[in-house]
Amino acid sequence: MIGKNKIKLIKSLSFKKYRQKYGLFLVEGDKNVREILISDYQVNELYATENFLESDEKIISHALKINKVNTSELKKASLLVQPQHAMAICPIPVSKRKIPGLKKLTLYLDGIQDPGNMGTIIRICDWFGIEELICSPCTADVYNPKVIQASMGSFCRVRISYMPFEKIAGLAGELKIPVFGTFIEGVNIYKEILPDNALVVLGNEGCGISKEASQMIEYKIKIPSFCKKEESAESLNVAVAAGIVCSEFKRQTYSK
Amino acid sequence: MIGKNKIKLIKSLSFKKYRQKYGLFLVEGDKNVREILISDYQVNELYATENFLESDEKIISHALKINKVNTSELKKASLLVQPQHAMAICPIPVSKRKIPGLKKLTLYLDGIQDPGNMGTIIRICDWFGIEELICSPCTADVYNPKVIQASMGSFCRVRISYMPFEKIAGLAGELKIPVFGTFIEGVNIYKEILPDNALVVLGNEGCGISKEASQMIEYKIKIPSFCKKEESAESLNVAVAAGIVCSEFKRQTYSK
Repeated sequence: MIGKNKIKLIKSLSFKKYRQKYGLFLVEGDKNVREILISDYQVNELYATENFLESDEKIISHALKINKVNTSELKKASLLVQPQHAMAICPIPVSKRKIPGLKKLTLYLDGIQDPGNMGTIIRICDWFGIEELICSPCTADVYNPKVIQASMGSFCRVRISYMPFEKIAGLAGELKIPVFGTFIEGVNIYKEILPDNALVVLGNEGCGISKEASQMIEYKIKIPSFCKKEESAESLNVAVAAGIVCSEFKRQTYSK
Repeated sequence: MIGKNKIKLIKSLSFKKYRQKYGLFLVEGDKNVREILISDYQVNELYATENFLESDEKIISHALKINKVNTSELKKASLLVQPQHAMAICPIPVSKRKIPGLKKLTLYLDGIQDPGNMGTIIRICDWFGIEELICSPCTADVYNPKVIQASMGSFCRVRISYMPFEKIAGLAGELKIPVFGTFIEGVNIYKEILPDNALVVLGNEGCGISKEASQMIEYKIKIPSFCKKEESAESLNVAVAAGIVCSEFKRQTYSK
């Protein structure tokens, strides 16, 4: 049984204001919950069905408090239309690292708004071994339950931090790390020789990379369109573009 | 003003059953509505704000019936949480073409369920000049308003048809078109020399390509993961994978 006050707390975690107030975030979905249980994150409370709890007792024991519930109880508390078998309430960790290393290929998100896109990009980072994802302060919050949901557990393995672009651009400058960004007027990415190590900037869904950031980006690239019709898609979805750009950087590294 | 019965009709168009019953589909969002007005699709009814109607009178005149409404009226009828300034009701065209040409790079979707993924893949096709998208009968319906929404107008420029895989695989065989598919156990796509013309199969979000289809696919490819951690993302989002695969085919064609 999940008490009324607890349900109220859980529902409130869809809002950043309450996540910050309580210092908590919500993880839903069997895969996400399993991933967080084996990660370095702390799990304060686990709500799960008997089947889920019995599926892997070793990892379940990582939760500080375990509550057996049935699916209809879970449904009452869930933020999902079709909840699965588990949810976890976890403390938002205090960030210990202030300066990202920039030792490998790194992405910077300049104002991504859609939590689904943000989560999908975290999953892309995980796939391509990109350990560091840096976001502008106005980018979607990683602890938004929709971001967690779309990341499919990858949020446990990618370090995510928020900082203004000028700061990270300054650091890249000091370390002589080239800064790339995707622009409509950029050069064809297929024609470029891409370095193994770079900072790659992706912009907002509607307006792209901000003017301020644009001025600090040395290498402007684009994924060329092959549509020969007069009218064509204006752009690719930003998560798809992120996937293609990461793939091309990694393909070139791999092919060297 | 949009009458009660019309609102009921509009809302019903989120269900395939009613789209089939009335032979109609709904297009929302300013970009989508503009695109359909300049396309070969017929627009039976246009509901739009004064600003939208005045923005481009030439294309507006393509609608058979034009209704000026305000934003709160539009909000009542809309399926979107944040409706924009226009919606259109259009007849579902009777498909005239039964056999796809397979003359260029073509995608086949084997059971894609999420309308957002389907719409994003249509947008990818448009971007990469892929004119033909073929879907298994159990793939999401292109006239689902969420598919239309995510396609950002690209549904007007990509031919979409539904047919069982054995039929299209048979046709590919006759025409000697190679058939590719993405599989976890596939060969590294970056190592393959890809042809300009191929049929590329993408599978369902959860289960991948069906067993039946798998047996008919000659070239099994994968996008390699670069994550060196013990645990890593199990897969990429299918629309991201579609984007990367299309990009790699087109990059190789372009580089020849």
